[in-house]
Amino acid sequence: MNNLLTPEPTLVLAEWTHHIRRSALRQLVAVVAQPGITSLAGGLPDPALFPAAEYAAALSEVIARDPQSLQYRPPLRRLQEHIVDMMAIRGVRCAPEEIFITTGAQQALQVLAQLLLDPGGQVMIEKTIYSGMRQVLTSLNPQLIGVDSDLREGLDIEGAAAALTAGARPAFLYTIPTGHNPLGVTMSAERRRRLVALAGAYGVPLIEDDPYGFLQYDGEPIRPLRALDDAWVLYVGSFSKILAPALRLGWIVAPPVLVEKLTVIKESIDLETSALTQRAVAAYLDTGHLPQQIARLQDTYRLRRDALLGALARHMPADVRWTRPDAGMFVWVELDASADTWLLLDRAVAEKQVAFVPGGAFALHGEDNGARNCLRLSFASSTPEQIEHAVAAIASLL
Amino acid sequence: MNNLLTPEPTLVLAEWTHHIRRSALRQLVAVVAQPGITSLAGGLPDPALFPAAEYAAALSEVIARDPQSLQYRPPLRRLQEHIVDMMAIRGVRCAPEEIFITTGAQQALQVLAQLLLDPGGQVMIEKTIYSGMRQVLTSLNPQLIGVDSDLREGLDIEGAAAALTAGARPAFLYTIPTGHNPLGVTMSAERRRRLVALAGAYGVPLIEDDPYGFLQYDGEPIRPLRALDDAWVLYVGSFSKILAPALRLGWIVAPPVLVEKLTVIKESIDLETSALTQRAVAAYLDTGHLPQQIARLQDTYRLRRDALLGALARHMPADVRWTRPDAGMFVWVELDASADTWLLLDRAVAEKQVAFVPGGAFALHGEDNGARNCLRLSFASSTPEQIEHAVAAIASLL
Repeated sequence: MNNLLTPEPTLVLAEWTHHIRRSALRQLVAVVAQPGITSLAGGLPDPALFPAAEYAAALSEVIARDPQSLQYRPPLRRLQEHIVDMMAIRGVRCAPEEIFITTGAQQALQVLAQLLLDPGGQVMIEKTIYSGMRQVLTSLNPQLIGVDSDLREGLDIEGAAAALTAGARPAFLYTIPTGHNPLGVTMSAERRRRLVALAGAYGVPLIEDDPYGFLQYDGEPIRPLRALDDAWVLYVGSFSKILAPALRLGWIVAPPVLVEKLTVIKESIDLETSALTQRAVAAYLDTGHLPQQIARLQDTYRLRRDALLGALARHMPADVRWTRPDAGMFVWVELDASADTWLLLDRAVAEKQVAFVPGGAFALHGEDNGARNCLRLSFASSTPEQIEHAVAAIASLL
Repeated sequence: MNNLLTPEPTLVLAEWTHHIRRSALRQLVAVVAQPGITSLAGGLPDPALFPAAEYAAALSEVIARDPQSLQYRPPLRRLQEHIVDMMAIRGVRCAPEEIFITTGAQQALQVLAQLLLDPGGQVMIEKTIYSGMRQVLTSLNPQLIGVDSDLREGLDIEGAAAALTAGARPAFLYTIPTGHNPLGVTMSAERRRRLVALAGAYGVPLIEDDPYGFLQYDGEPIRPLRALDDAWVLYVGSFSKILAPALRLGWIVAPPVLVEKLTVIKESIDLETSALTQRAVAAYLDTGHLPQQIARLQDTYRLRRDALLGALARHMPADVRWTRPDAGMFVWVELDASADTWLLLDRAVAEKQVAFVPGGAFALHGEDNGARNCLRLSFASSTPEQIEHAVAAIASLL
């Protein structure tokens, strides 16, 4: 039949796929995962802190107890109840019917964006932000309304309010208020109150991405936005940083009417989240080990954060500034305004076998967006000695 | 700030979400999963046939061997190699670089649709089809070009060719050539050859959905479309029906250049498929137990298929017709043209505690589409005695 048509047909992809590119971050993580590299680049938790034996025991138990653990199953009520209890620790009151189980928090961001965003719609988002959220937005191609962040109190509420006053009508505002990735900042309680007031006044849903909410190291526990407002805040939680990433298990807290919609959206994406994983995590949580697991993470990561802050103070030139995170895994470092951290990374890897992530990797518009002189350091998966070595090496190149 | 705006703002969802509804099929599966119901409705494999102990052992082994099994990880080469070997059993030659790992086959359908379909584009698809694919298409809202299927040889190639000749230019054609869900038909070898020739001539990618390819019960193994063509066929495989659904593990066979694009699309959806699941399935496959697992499935399901076909022959009135599947899990039954199988289901559940899926649940456009007098029976997860009982009960209502 080839003679029916000329020229020879070629495979045509959707137009938007010509603009997609791998996240610089994930490409980089692959590059620096080589032996011999001391990396403060990855956003990886420390595998030594995974409750591996306990989780293996939970898996064996639920499989042995009931082969239906390996079957298609509806969301597990017992897991939803456990998540309600976990949210209560964070100061949030909610019901099992408001807990929507997802295949990792990334899927939660994807389905919420699909739920809220119409073609040609607007999204309000910080100019320096988690690159996985930017990837969610690539296929949906909204108009992006960038807001600034300050490195002490987080998202610039005045800037957001000004944009709304000027007529912006975003389908949602996305933020990581606690232990921001990559900035390491935690939004102040005062700003949280103002943000939810703004959301209610203008009818802007807030997607609160909270993977690090249980990893707070200092001071009074700060309550998530969802504790302040149950109408406009859609909360996203994750087991990746408190148990292990390979569970691919997260959740959304949302009104039941939205949970119904999300259920249908999720069915088209992956039918359902593994019944085995849901049962095994519920069985792990049944044992009551979570509080000591979280305490162990907090104790270890606090020491490493302190090691990183100490090393920065010891080694960095006087004109370098950095955040002092009380939560999460990351410190954001601003070098002299003329610095180029992409070039610095090349030198750090080649000359010192040390890696970090250049700030430009987190720029909203895929350019450097004012972050060319910045870099992100992760303290989660390195020892204090490795951290000291890496910071000294980076500083020696400045 | 509430006085800035009147009236009180309300949460606005994306326009398309007002049209979404739960799959009738998945709603129904929940309803008939009650104790006391003899159900031939679900598309569920039999949990008694899951390799539960072997898989639990594989999980324990990979977790004990390396805590990195619970970490973020790139796709597992060893699993890709195993899948290449499995494809070879099906007569397909491919390389590990062509294997794209997905979180279940449903995700494979989702990412392929996103890869290929532009807004306002066309999709060619059978008028009676797996409802999960229809859900994928709901959010993308393409122009649907329905093609007929016949119950002996599958997709109507003449109809597809006529539509293409008349100017249709679909972004892809979707089909389940082996053990079709819900029709139970397997496309003949001759039609397979003509379909891939048509695809090449008109430049139409074929999405070959093959969850039942390893579940063939009679005759010579029939090779998938991908064995006939490696340029236009995008093959989707699944472990759900040969190992267990709760693994949520599937794969695509596609050219490496598309695997790169799919990697980015998948990152935005769920970052990656569980490293733990990938390692555990690879460890299970390392043991060499797969051939005997597949043989056990084939032997059991063949007996049940025969029980269903025998019961239909014994109990159904003379004007009832049905398919004789040599693969998969389903028999499609056509009652008298005046029958209404939604009403019949109500009676079957209420009067006989027996369930099936009305044919309308699989209609492309969400109406009955000529399938109002049809129903789908699954033989996979019922004993011959249950099957006999259920068919006699349904027949007694006609």
